[in-house]
Amino acid sequence: MSMPTSGRSAAVPTPQDLGVGARVSLHPMSDRFVEIILGALRSVDTGDLEVATDDVSTYIAGSERDLLRYLCDVIVAAEAREPGVHLGVSILLSRGCPGEVECVADPTTGLPRVAPIRLEQTGVHAAAHWSLYPLGAPDHLPVIERAVDAARRSGTYAGSEHYATRLEGDLAEVLTTAANGWLEVGSDVAHVVTHLSVSVNSPSAQVREEEDPA
Amino acid sequence: MSMPTSGRSAAVPTPQDLGVGARVSLHPMSDRFVEIILGALRSVDTGDLEVATDDVSTYIAGSERDLLRYLCDVIVAAEAREPGVHLGVSILLSRGCPGEVECVADPTTGLPRVAPIRLEQTGVHAAAHWSLYPLGAPDHLPVIERAVDAARRSGTYAGSEHYATRLEGDLAEVLTTAANGWLEVGSDVAHVVTHLSVSVNSPSAQVREEEDPA
Repeated sequence: MSMPTSGRSAAVPTPQDLGVGARVSLHPMSDRFVEIILGALRSVDTGDLEVATDDVSTYIAGSERDLLRYLCDVIVAAEAREPGVHLGVSILLSRGCPGEVECVADPTTGLPRVAPIRLEQTGVHAAAHWSLYPLGAPDHLPVIERAVDAARRSGTYAGSEHYATRLEGDLAEVLTTAANGWLEVGSDVAHVVTHLSVSVNSPSAQVREEEDPA
Repeated sequence: MSMPTSGRSAAVPTPQDLGVGARVSLHPMSDRFVEIILGALRSVDTGDLEVATDDVSTYIAGSERDLLRYLCDVIVAAEAREPGVHLGVSILLSRGCPGEVECVADPTTGLPRVAPIRLEQTGVHAAAHWSLYPLGAPDHLPVIERAVDAARRSGTYAGSEHYATRLEGDLAEVLTTAANGWLEVGSDVAHVVTHLSVSVNSPSAQVREEEDPA
């Protein structure tokens, strides 16, 4: 089923036309996880976003900027409910969804270019593994490499891992680095998905030191 | 940097040649998360796999069958350390990694076809959101659709979500449904990645009933 876009081919497609949205799974590693997850989701203003939570993740649809603001606020709100809690967060951002919208750019207007998103610093430090998937592009590696190059200049780039780029820094900057790479690709490639596995307050460094005092 | 495969072009590429591997993030929603994660990782035999854990996820490389057996065993071992614990698990499986191997099939042998993987039932029930990304394929939607069709016949298919297919059933069958879709695509497409967001022992259904008695 595709959206009926044919009647307004001269208009710039909206985020809704392009199937822009996200899925997020919030995993507070605490006995109080139910209160932390539900409390965080309840405390953040959804504005114009469509938000639906099931047992695996929360689906969010709306403009790119609103999505990022919401994702950042929800993670900050969860951390604030139990300061210092170790949070694992899995995020998917998608633009151009098969089955819901046609993954073909309007020949008149092309794909809309969204200005890079900036968010206020949160004071929450995060590390993440970030992967980017331009779909339907026969030569996808240079497209990914350009986005990773932009990330290298962002200040959050922290190395290349197997299957992912490591980002590290203030949560707001980690999320916007990944999102801006996704948006950059999305101005040329109709269907693009990005995944982020985010870690907040990980005790791994200390744990590893205790395990292996050498 | 690409692997030096040119000297043995007639050989069938190994999983290592093809950059086969996984990343997994295990998130037990419990105050005892450190013991659960480290205990589970330590208790499972790594066999011939290469395994490296950092603060965001664990990287695993080896044959497709060994990877799946390990992923399943680690999740079962984590659940067994605190029976009933709510676990969120984020999994990435990749075949054909840019920067490490050339994403071009050998013209003589093509890409190896791996037989579908089966694992013994675990008794652990899981729900998951599954996404599949054939990369570098100009016409990617029919490729995804064929894999989802196969999942529909597997018994774990539980509906189509935004950006993901819902799978539900015994953990072993949920994991193999996703992995077998990934392998099927990988016999035609040189670079293919799949993501799974897995939920074990979610209290969401009860919580939602308490929240909203209507």
